[in-house]
Parts: sequence; structure tokens; C-alpha cells
Amino acid sequence: MYLKEIGAKAKLASRYMAKCSTELKNKALLKVADDLIKNQDEIIKANKIDIDNAVADGMSAALLDRLTLTPERFELMAEGIRQVVLLDDPIGEVTGMKKRPNGLVIGQQRVPMGVIGIIYESRPNVTVDAFALTFKTGNAVILRGGSDCIYSNIALVKSIRESLKSLSIDENAISLIENTDRKLAIEFMKMNEYLDLLIPRGGAGLIRNVVLNATVPVIETGTGNCHIYVDKDADLDKAIPIINNAKLQRLGVCNACESLVIHKDIAEKAIPLIAADLSKHECEIRGDEASKMYSNCINDCTEEDFGTEYLDKIISVKTVSSLDEAIEHINKYSTGHSEAIITESYEASQRFLNEVDSACVYVNASTRFTDGFMFGFGAEIGISTQKLHARGPMGLLALTSTKYIIYGNGQIRE
Amino acid sequence: MYLKEIGAKAKLASRYMAKCSTELKNKALLKVADDLIKNQDEIIKANKIDIDNAVADGMSAALLDRLTLTPERFELMAEGIRQVVLLDDPIGEVTGMKKRPNGLVIGQQRVPMGVIGIIYESRPNVTVDAFALTFKTGNAVILRGGSDCIYSNIALVKSIRESLKSLSIDENAISLIENTDRKLAIEFMKMNEYLDLLIPRGGAGLIRNVVLNATVPVIETGTGNCHIYVDKDADLDKAIPIINNAKLQRLGVCNACESLVIHKDIAEKAIPLIAADLSKHECEIRGDEASKMYSNCINDCTEEDFGTEYLDKIISVKTVSSLDEAIEHINKYSTGHSEAIITESYEASQRFLNEVDSACVYVNASTRFTDGFMFGFGAEIGISTQKLHARGPMGLLALTSTKYIIYGNGQIRE
Repeated sequence: MYLKEIGAKAKLASRYMAKCSTELKNKALLKVADDLIKNQDEIIKANKIDIDNAVADGMSAALLDRLTLTPERFELMAEGIRQVVLLDDPIGEVTGMKKRPNGLVIGQQRVPMGVIGIIYESRPNVTVDAFALTFKTGNAVILRGGSDCIYSNIALVKSIRESLKSLSIDENAISLIENTDRKLAIEFMKMNEYLDLLIPRGGAGLIRNVVLNATVPVIETGTGNCHIYVDKDADLDKAIPIINNAKLQRLGVCNACESLVIHKDIAEKAIPLIAADLSKHECEIRGDEASKMYSNCINDCTEEDFGTEYLDKIISVKTVSSLDEAIEHINKYSTGHSEAIITESYEASQRFLNEVDSACVYVNASTRFTDGFMFGFGAEIGISTQKLHARGPMGLLALTSTKYIIYGNGQIRE
Repeated sequence: MYLKEIGAKAKLASRYMAKCSTELKNKALLKVADDLIKNQDEIIKANKIDIDNAVADGMSAALLDRLTLTPERFELMAEGIRQVVLLDDPIGEVTGMKKRPNGLVIGQQRVPMGVIGIIYESRPNVTVDAFALTFKTGNAVILRGGSDCIYSNIALVKSIRESLKSLSIDENAISLIENTDRKLAIEFMKMNEYLDLLIPRGGAGLIRNVVLNATVPVIETGTGNCHIYVDKDADLDKAIPIINNAKLQRLGVCNACESLVIHKDIAEKAIPLIAADLSKHECEIRGDEASKMYSNCINDCTEEDFGTEYLDKIISVKTVSSLDEAIEHINKYSTGHSEAIITESYEASQRFLNEVDSACVYVNASTRFTDGFMFGFGAEIGISTQKLHARGPMGLLALTSTKYIIYGNGQIRE
């Protein structure tokens, strides 16, 4: 009953939102940003409760850091919302309008998705981010954050709903499932009557749970077992810094490189240099037998390593005897997120781009660029690793649908 | 094991298909069409077994007709394939290629979906249709047809696989699940390792079963509780033939009109004319109290009628006192397929187009036009009633995905 009520209210709000002008949506977003700054003391108080509980539960320092709200982070959240205001509103655009032989004029109009559910873990900034993006695209959003973050989320959503109310906007454009019971989360994933789309944001376990349980349409995001292939024609002056960057610039992210594939003809030259550079930065290397011949810094690896997203200072190495073998290995173990080839060969670059089956395929660049901001979308709701609807970094467009509008003058079908 | 083997082979075939040239794909499609004609006697023999079984099971005449293969239908199936040959191959197109400030050049390339599963009922022509469309778009397809049609499907797929083999094309580009055990069908819906997309084609029960059980991405197709709204400013010379066409031109289709919504200011004039016309064609009308005042041909209706897709010579009537009420009623009871307004009012037409939340929204035309061929796509794999990925009639593009291709020259992320 509790969820159905939230769902029904969100559905109604989505009808309201679909009619909202860009002007009003932008005005509301700016008000939400200003009010979050104004209400930050109160929200930080609520955040403290979450932090105290997390400390008592022994949460790791890294996760505690993600959970913590500070005045600087309020500035960042508000700035994030203001950036979304500056983006073009995709809603209403009509594309491909054509006249059919019978005189019907058929066009495709961009419309909001409707009601979007988002299930995520303990990062309160996702609450604000997800609201800004779904609101700008004329959707209603239902948030289900982690229990670790519940007091922060309640306070954030309260502030946002009050801002909307003050402008006479239906505050059910954002709702939070305050009861973090897991059974309710599963029920939420099956609300086909109310949810048009569900996006999980978080670790592999959360995403798997949503994919296996949801009956509503889902966009699978996130997990990235990303590869860099060092081709026999690689320029090592590019390869070494790119590998270093892709593995070490930030460890816990889905676009970090987790596995190297190295052509045997360049292994003797490349592996000692790569191993020395990574080892210097305390990165553990786990390689196959052939790779271990070229460096003492390489530990044993198992088949399991090739399928592991470490999110840590560890990387696996596989040597191959051809481009074909490299592509086959990558297509077998990759999660379809981001892969790069380092090569000066035209043919190898083209074959890699065409044959590697991932959302983002790079030539001579770090996989760390897979990101809505880096791609120039101005914002990001996540990175899709499925092929339906959206693939790769998702900006505002991924939160929209289309409908056909047809102008007739009495046509009937023969 | 049986399904996993089919899945693994299809996955491999999908890698092969993704690299296939348009030329080879077209050559293969023409060969498949020719060979089906050549092998028709053998296939018709298999079809006879299905028909005999169906007759023994007491299948209705309408369903028996759908099941039956004749030389004329072989010509139609072959012609359907040849039409697909003439369509542009969408695979490989690169759109939106842009240079970022750091020099990375990022484009989006259209690629096949991969492995597509199709679950359908007893129409053997779907087997051939689904193959032609998925093959042209570089996918591998796994078909799970109804048990009523199994001998026909086995014979059709055998012919197609032999045609592919004769051109040295991986014949696992098409596979059929020959064991029609329902448990296997459920297992099929959960093959996330192998299936990139699952499309159910058939009645409401089949589609619901897939939506509730599948863990792979699904495109929901089909059910249509379509409305026509007769506005107070309707031209009844357009309204009467459009309603007649939308309800009666073909009964068992998802884009047939199932419910009329009539503005009270035109009810007195419109309802007697509409009721007389529909009754003349033996169509039962079930209307609310207000509508019954204007015609003796209108029977009682219940709330349930408004939510029913009759697929029969029955239509419901609801009277409303405003455009707002009409839109609200439609958005409440519609399945989001196709709805039309009959009006000469500019404002009413624009509001209806914008506020009715359906895949196809018409002004002054029959809902029967919702169809890939009528929309000019040249082919159709189904009509999506969900908002993710594809909405409305789905042509070749709906069977494709995209990937980002990124050209760098050593870029790393700061």
C-alpha cells in the first residue's frame, strides 16, 4: 500500500511534469539549488546521524568519505544543478516528420520517460543529481537510497519538495522510499503499473539484484572489467602513460583498466617497462606464464583474475599471439564497458573498433574518459553496459522516450 | 544444457554476423527466399502434421487459418524477404562524430544488438519474418515458437539453415528451440549470458508471462486498448468512417479501436449516427448511462469494459464533459498503443497530441495506420508499447544498438 501510494502520486506528477515548460523547470532547479545551500545546516545535522551510525557499524574510511556532506559538497551539488539548468531541454523536439503517400504527416516527438525509479547506495549526492536530471527531462522520480544514508536522503528530499511546493509545482515529482526494508525494494522493482524505467546505481551486487528481480524495464549500469590491448605496433611512449592513467588515476571507478592484453611480439620490450612503471606505484600485477618471463614483478594469475573487476591496485596480464586472439579474449571476459587498443597500425585500429563488442572502444587513449562530462553531455545519470535503449555514458537523452504524432484529414485504411 | 548450447552457438554466430557485409547478407536472404519456395512441398508436409494435430485439439477456424501454409503464402513469405533485401542496412553508420577540446574524436556507431530471442505463437510466417529482419541487421536469432506450430517451424528453420550453410555462413545465425516445454521457455527468458534482447510476439497472456519472468532486456509489444475521442468540434463526416474503419476493418489486431470517448456537447448528434453505422455492421456497443440516452442500440457497460481489448465486434462508449476529462480517461485505461482525436479545433488537436501518453497519437485518422509498413519502415518486427528503446512500430533500427568509437593520440585523464 505504502509503495502503491507513492507510485500513484508519482504517476500523476509525471503527467504534470510532461506539460511543464522549460522555463518553469529551470526556475525550479535554481530555487532547489539555492534552498539546498540555505538548508544545509539542517541537512548536515541529519547527515551526522548517518555518519555516527556508519562509524558505529565500522564503515570503511572510503565509504564514510562518500557519505559525508560538507559545505563544500553543498556548493558542488548546487553547482551541479545549475549546470543542468544550462543544458538544452530535449523534450518536445520533433524529428523525421514526413508526409506519407496517403497524406498522413508522421513525426517523432521526444517526450519524458514518465516515472523513473532509481536504486542506489550510500552517496547522498546521487539524490540531488538524479533529481536534477530526471526533473529537467520532465520525469517524476522515485528514489530508493541505501539505509546507510537514509537520514541524509530524507532531509535532502524534504528540502527539494519544499522548493517545488513554493513554486506550486507538484512536489511528487520527487519521492523517497523512506522505509529501506529489502522486501519493499524488491516490490518496488515489480511496480510495472507505475514505473516506466528503473536504473540501479551502485556495485555489481546491487545491479545484479535489480536485473534478476525487476519486472519493469531496467537499464543496467556500471560494472566495468575494462581492457587495454597493447598491439605489436604499439607506441610504448603512449602505452605506458595511458596504462598508468587508466589503472591508477582513480581506483574505485567502473572505467578503470583492470586487465592488460599484450601481443607476444612486443611483450619482451613492453612488459618490463609497464611492470616497472606499475610496480613503482605499488600496483600488483598478476600475469600468465608467458608474461612472467619478462619481469620479476609479476605474480601468478588464474582464469578467475581475467574476469575480475578489482577496483584496487591490481591488474591482470594476458599475452596473445594475434589481434584475433586479443579481440576474442576481450569479448569473452569484458563486461562490455570500455576497452582500448594502443597501436600505430591503421588496420589493427579499425578491426579493434569494429570487432570489440563494448559500449566504448578507444584507440590510443585512456579508458578513464568514459564519462558523460568527458563526452560533452554536460551531465551523467550512469554508464549503460546493456545494448537496449542507451549504451555507454547516459546524458539527458537517455531519460527520454519518443512518441509518434500523426496529422491526418480523414484517412482510413484500405 | 540444451539451451546453453544453443545460446553459446548463437553468441558465436552473432560475432560472425556483426562482421558480415551487406552484400553477403542480401545474397543470403535472396537464397533463403528461393530455397523456401523450392522446399515448400516438404515444409507443407510438416505443416500438415501441425494442422492435423490442431484439428484434433479443436483449434478454432481463425487460428487454423493462421497456422496453414499454402503455395500462395510461400510466395508472400519469399516476397517479404525480398523486400527486406531492398531496405538500407543500418549497421555501421556513424553519427554525431565530434572533436572534444582535448583532441579526442568521439562518434556513435550503429551496431547489431547481438543475440535476439523471439517468443511467439502459432504463426509460421513469424519464423521467416523474424529471421529476415534480425539477419539483415547483423544479429543472431533464437526462436521459440508455439508447440502448435513446431513441425512447421522445424522444417522452415531447417531450410533456412541449409541455405546459409550453402554460402558458408554460420547457420547458427538462426536457431529454433525445438523442445517446447514451458519450463525451458522460462529458462530461455533468463539467459542473460547469451541474450541481448527478448521480444515476445503474441497475445496479452504471452507478453505478460515474458514481462514477469524475463531477466534479460525485453521489448513489450502488442496489446492495444485503442481509443478514438470525438471532440465537440469534430467533423462527423470524418468521424463516422474513421470509427468504422478503426473498429471493423480488421478485428483481431492490436491497433483496432476498442473504445470511444465522446464529448457531451456533440453526443446528441454524434451517438445516433455512430451507433447506427456500427450496428448496421453487427457491432455491439456498450456505453455509459449518458450515451444510452441517444440510442437504443447501446447496451450497458461496466468499468471493466473500459479496460478491455475486445479484438471482436464490440466497442465501449464513454461520454465526457471536457477535453481534460477525455485525456484523463484515455491515459487511465489505454495500454499506450494508439489513440485518435476527431476535431476541427486547433487547440484541441495540439493538446491531445501533447498530453495523451501513447506510442502513436492521431488527429483525424484511423488508428489502424499504426504499422511499420504504413509508417514507411518497409518492415516491422512488432509494435512496442513500452517507452524504453523503441516505442510504436519497430523497423530495422529497433533491432540495432550503438557503440561509441573514440580516436585518440595518447590522451590521458587529468
